[in-house]
Amino acid sequence: MTNTSLTLGEVADRLDLACRGDRARPLTGLATLANAEAHHVSFLANAKYRKFLHETRAGAVIIAKNLVDDCPVDCLLADDPYLAYARLSQLFDDAPMLPAGIHSTAVVASTAQIDASAAIGPLCVIGEGVVIGAEVSVGAGTVIGANCRIDAGSKLHPRVTLLHGVTLGSGCAVHSGAVIGGDGFGFAPIHAGERRGQWERIAQLGSVHIGRNVSIGCNTAIDRGALDDTVIADNVIIDNLVQIAHNVQIGEGTAIAGSVGIAGSAIIGAHCMIGGGAGIVGHVQIADGVQIQARAFIVGSIDKPGAYASGTGMMELRDWRRNAVRFSQLEDMYKRIVELEKQLSNRQ
Amino acid sequence: MTNTSLTLGEVADRLDLACRGDRARPLTGLATLANAEAHHVSFLANAKYRKFLHETRAGAVIIAKNLVDDCPVDCLLADDPYLAYARLSQLFDDAPMLPAGIHSTAVVASTAQIDASAAIGPLCVIGEGVVIGAEVSVGAGTVIGANCRIDAGSKLHPRVTLLHGVTLGSGCAVHSGAVIGGDGFGFAPIHAGERRGQWERIAQLGSVHIGRNVSIGCNTAIDRGALDDTVIADNVIIDNLVQIAHNVQIGEGTAIAGSVGIAGSAIIGAHCMIGGGAGIVGHVQIADGVQIQARAFIVGSIDKPGAYASGTGMMELRDWRRNAVRFSQLEDMYKRIVELEKQLSNRQ
Amino acid sequence: MTNTSLTLGEVADRLDLACRGDRARPLTGLATLANAEAHHVSFLANAKYRKFLHETRAGAVIIAKNLVDDCPVDCLLADDPYLAYARLSQLFDDAPMLPAGIHSTAVVASTAQIDASAAIGPLCVIGEGVVIGAEVSVGAGTVIGANCRIDAGSKLHPRVTLLHGVTLGSGCAVHSGAVIGGDGFGFAPIHAGERRGQWERIAQLGSVHIGRNVSIGCNTAIDRGALDDTVIADNVIIDNLVQIAHNVQIGEGTAIAGSVGIAGSAIIGAHCMIGGGAGIVGHVQIADGVQIQARAFIVGSIDKPGAYASGTGMMELRDWRRNAVRFSQLEDMYKRIVELEKQLSNRQ
Repeated sequence: MTNTSLTLGEVADRLDLACRGDRARPLTGLATLANAEAHHVSFLANAKYRKFLHETRAGAVIIAKNLVDDCPVDCLLADDPYLAYARLSQLFDDAPMLPAGIHSTAVVASTAQIDASAAIGPLCVIGEGVVIGAEVSVGAGTVIGANCRIDAGSKLHPRVTLLHGVTLGSGCAVHSGAVIGGDGFGFAPIHAGERRGQWERIAQLGSVHIGRNVSIGCNTAIDRGALDDTVIADNVIIDNLVQIAHNVQIGEGTAIAGSVGIAGSAIIGAHCMIGGGAGIVGHVQIADGVQIQARAFIVGSIDKPGAYASGTGMMELRDWRRNAVRFSQLEDMYKRIVELEKQLSNRQ
Repeated sequence: MTNTSLTLGEVADRLDLACRGDRARPLTGLATLANAEAHHVSFLANAKYRKFLHETRAGAVIIAKNLVDDCPVDCLLADDPYLAYARLSQLFDDAPMLPAGIHSTAVVASTAQIDASAAIGPLCVIGEGVVIGAEVSVGAGTVIGANCRIDAGSKLHPRVTLLHGVTLGSGCAVHSGAVIGGDGFGFAPIHAGERRGQWERIAQLGSVHIGRNVSIGCNTAIDRGALDDTVIADNVIIDNLVQIAHNVQIGEGTAIAGSVGIAGSAIIGAHCMIGGGAGIVGHVQIADGVQIQARAFIVGSIDKPGAYASGTGMMELRDWRRNAVRFSQLEDMYKRIVELEKQLSNRQ
Repeated sequence: MTNTSLTLGEVADRLDLACRGDRARPLTGLATLANAEAHHVSFLANAKYRKFLHETRAGAVIIAKNLVDDCPVDCLLADDPYLAYARLSQLFDDAPMLPAGIHSTAVVASTAQIDASAAIGPLCVIGEGVVIGAEVSVGAGTVIGANCRIDAGSKLHPRVTLLHGVTLGSGCAVHSGAVIGGDGFGFAPIHAGERRGQWERIAQLGSVHIGRNVSIGCNTAIDRGALDDTVIADNVIIDNLVQIAHNVQIGEGTAIAGSVGIAGSAIIGAHCMIGGGAGIVGHVQIADGVQIQARAFIVGSIDKPGAYASGTGMMELRDWRRNAVRFSQLEDMYKRIVELEKQLSNRQ
C-alpha cells in the first residue's frame, strides 16, 4: 500500500509506545484487522471490531493495554489506540511532497517574501507583499492574493485560492478548490430612484484570519468580512463544500462536516461538532461544546452545551406522503384534541 | 483599515449627501458605531444599534435626517443610510486591481478580441473568438472558453471558469471557483440491448446567458442549457456554492443566498429572495416577489408573492427524537382523533 | 444553433433509425416541437408534449413508431425516442475540442506517459508517473497528481484537480472545478496531555478508483480513502457540488443529482437514484435500485428497493410557523390522544 518500510521497533520508538514481539519485524503499511497481512500494522480502537482480533493475520496490532492478552500477534500498547493509529498513519503517508524552492513557471511578485525552505509549485501566482514562512508548501495552480501571510509548515494543496490579505497560521492544510477571502454577500437594496429594485454592492473591507493547525476541505468557501474579519480559531477542522459567510467566528477545536452552511456573523463556540449538511442562520451565538446533528437547521442561538436536531426521520415515500400531509394539518389536529378534551371534561 | 484617506467634505460630495461638521476632517476607513474611532466614518441603519450612537467615537456618522439631533459627532445625512453605507464602502475599497493589459504568462487565442483597457491576469487562458469589453478584469488562473463574450466593466476574480459560448453582461462580478457553462446533467436511460442499465449522455447544446450587474459567488456552478440557454437576468445576486441546473431562468433582481440548489428548468421570478440552503425542484414556476425561507424545499410552483417555508424547528436531540417518531405516526394519530370525534359525537 | 449540417438520411443512418420523408433535407440543429423550424430535428418523448406535434414546423421529428401517422412532417422512427434524442444531440455537439498533443505551456513530469492521441491543454500540470490513455482530453488549467491513471477517451474539462494515485476508467467526463482524491476528513481527538482538545490528522492512505463511463459534475468533491479506496463503479453519473466522503462505494449505474452529500464509508447499491440535495449518513448500506427523494436525509441502511423520503411539505410561512410549533409538541399531542382514548374507553 505504501513505499515506506519500518521495523516494529522503529514504529514503537517513533510513536513512543511499548511493544511486545519481534522488534525487527518489517512493516510496510496499515490495514484493518480483517484485511491485514503479515507486513501490516493494524489497530483495535472500537469494541465492535474486537471479534476480528483473534483471527487477524496482521504483523502487529495497536491495542489498549488491558487487551494485550487477547492479541494473537505482536502488539503496540497504547493508552488511546485510535490516536496512536492516527500518528501511525502519518508514518506511512507517502503523498508526494513538493521540493523546496520556487518552480520556474510560478509567477511571484517582486515584493513577496518566501522562505528558502518553502515549496512553490508549478503555475502558482503569488501576489505583492505576500509573506510565506518556513516549510510552507503551495500546490500547483494555487493563487495567493496580495499581502497574504502564510505561517510555517502550512500546506496548500493544488488549485487553492486565497484572495488578498488573508492570514493563515502555522500547520494549516487547505485542500484543493477551497476559496478563502472571497467577497462576503453584502448588498443594499435600492428602494428609490431610477435604479429602484437593483442592489448596491457593499465592499467587503475586512479579511479572513485563520489560526494554527486549521484544516479546510476541498471546494469550501470562507468569505472575507464586511468591516471586521471573519475569524477561524486554532485547531478548527472543516470538511469539503462548506460555506462560511462573512464575519462568522468559529471557536477553537470545532469540527464542521461536509456541506454545512453558516450564514453571516454567526458566532460558533469552541469544541462544537457540526454534522454534515447542517445549516446555521446568521447573527446567532452557539455556546461551546454544542453538538449539532447532521442536517439540523439552527435558527436561533444556543446558550448551553448539548445536542440539537431538526427535521424528520426517513420513511418510505408512501408513508411519508401521508404523514407530510398531516404535518400541514398539525395546527388543526391540535385544536381538535383541545376540543375533545373540553367536551370530555364538560361531561365529567 | 484601508489605505484611502478622504475628508468629510470629499465623502459628502462623492456620495451626494449633506453633511454637518468639519468638512476638512480626515477619514481613513469605516467601522461600526461601537468600534469606530476619530478617523472612521460609521453609520446608523438599524434601529437596534441606536443605543451605540450617543457613545460613538466615530469621526462622522451616516444617519437619517430625523435623527440628526441625536448625533454627538459630525454627520452625513442620508435618506437611506444603509444604501449610503454601501456606496461609502466602495470609496474605501482597497482591494488590489489588475493593471490594464495582458499578462505575459496568459495564453490568449489569436482570434480573441480584448479591449485595450481590459486587464488579463497571469496564467489565464482565453479561447478562440472570445470578446472582452472595456475595463473588464480577469483574475489570475481564470479560463475562458471559446466564443464567450464579457461586457464592459465586469470583474472575474482569480480561478473562475467560463466554458464556451457563455455571455456575461456589463458590470458583473464572478467570484473565485465559480464555473459557468458546465454541461447540464442530462442523460437518457438505456432500457434495452447490451448497454441496458447504462446512461446515454445528452449533449448540452445551449449556453448560459447572464445579464448586467449580476454577482456570482465562490464555487457556484451554473450549467449550460440542453437545447435553449440557461438565463440569469440583470441585477441578480447569487452567493457561494449555489447549484443552478440547466435551463433555469432567474428573473431580474432576485437574490439567492449560499448553498441553494435549483433543479433543471425551474423558472424563478423577479425580485425573489431565496434563503440559504433552500432547494427548488425542477420544472416549477415561482412568481415575482416570492420569499423562500432558508432551508425551505420548494416542491411545486408558487403563483403569488408571499413567504414560504418547510421543515421543522430545531430542538434538543432528546425531544427531537420523540417528536420525530410521532411524525412518522401522524397518519395514525390523525385517524385516532377522527375516531375519538366519532365516538363522542355518537354519544351526544 | 450549431455549426453542423446533416441530411435527414445521414441522421437516420448514423442513429440507425428508419425515416420517412425527404432524405436530402438539410438539418442543422435540434429544437423542441414548439420552437423548431424547418432546419431543425425535434422529438416527441413525453406524452404531455404531444399537443405540440400537429403544429410543429420542425423539418423532422423523432417519434415512436405507433405515432407515425400523427406526425405532420418528416420523421425518424425510434423504439425509444428519448434515447434517440440523446444520440442525436451528440451529432450536433459543437463544443470545441482540444487538438491532440501537449500544449507548450503545460508542465509535464518527465516520467509521465501520455498517449500521442491525447490532448493536454494550456497550463495543465501532469505529475510524475501519470499514465494518460488514447484520446484523453485534459482541459486548460487542470492539475493531475503523481501516479494517476486516466484511461482512453476520458475528458477532463478545464480546471479539474486529481490528487495523486487516482484512477479513472475509460470514457469518463470530469467537469470543471471537480476535485478527486482530496484527503478524507479523518482526525482523532486528543483527550489528554498538553494538546488536549486538539485533533490529530489521520493520513489518508487510500485513493479513489473510478470506473468506466462515469460523469462527475462541476465543483464536486470525492475524497480519497483512509486505508482502502473510495470506489465509484462503472456508469455512475454525478451532478454538481456533490460531496462524496472517504471510503464511500457507489454501485454501477447509480445517478446522483446536485448538492447531495454522502458521508464516510456509506455503501450505495447499483442503479439507485439519489435526488438533489439528499444526504446519506456514514457507514450505512443502501440496496440496489433504491430511489431517494430530493432533500431526503437517509439516517440508516435500506435493505430493499423502493422510494424513501423525509422532511415536510412546503407551505406559507404563516401556516408553517403554527405547524412547526405543533411538531415540537407532537409527543405531548400523542399522549393527550392516548389519554382521551383511555377516558372514553373507561366510560363504555
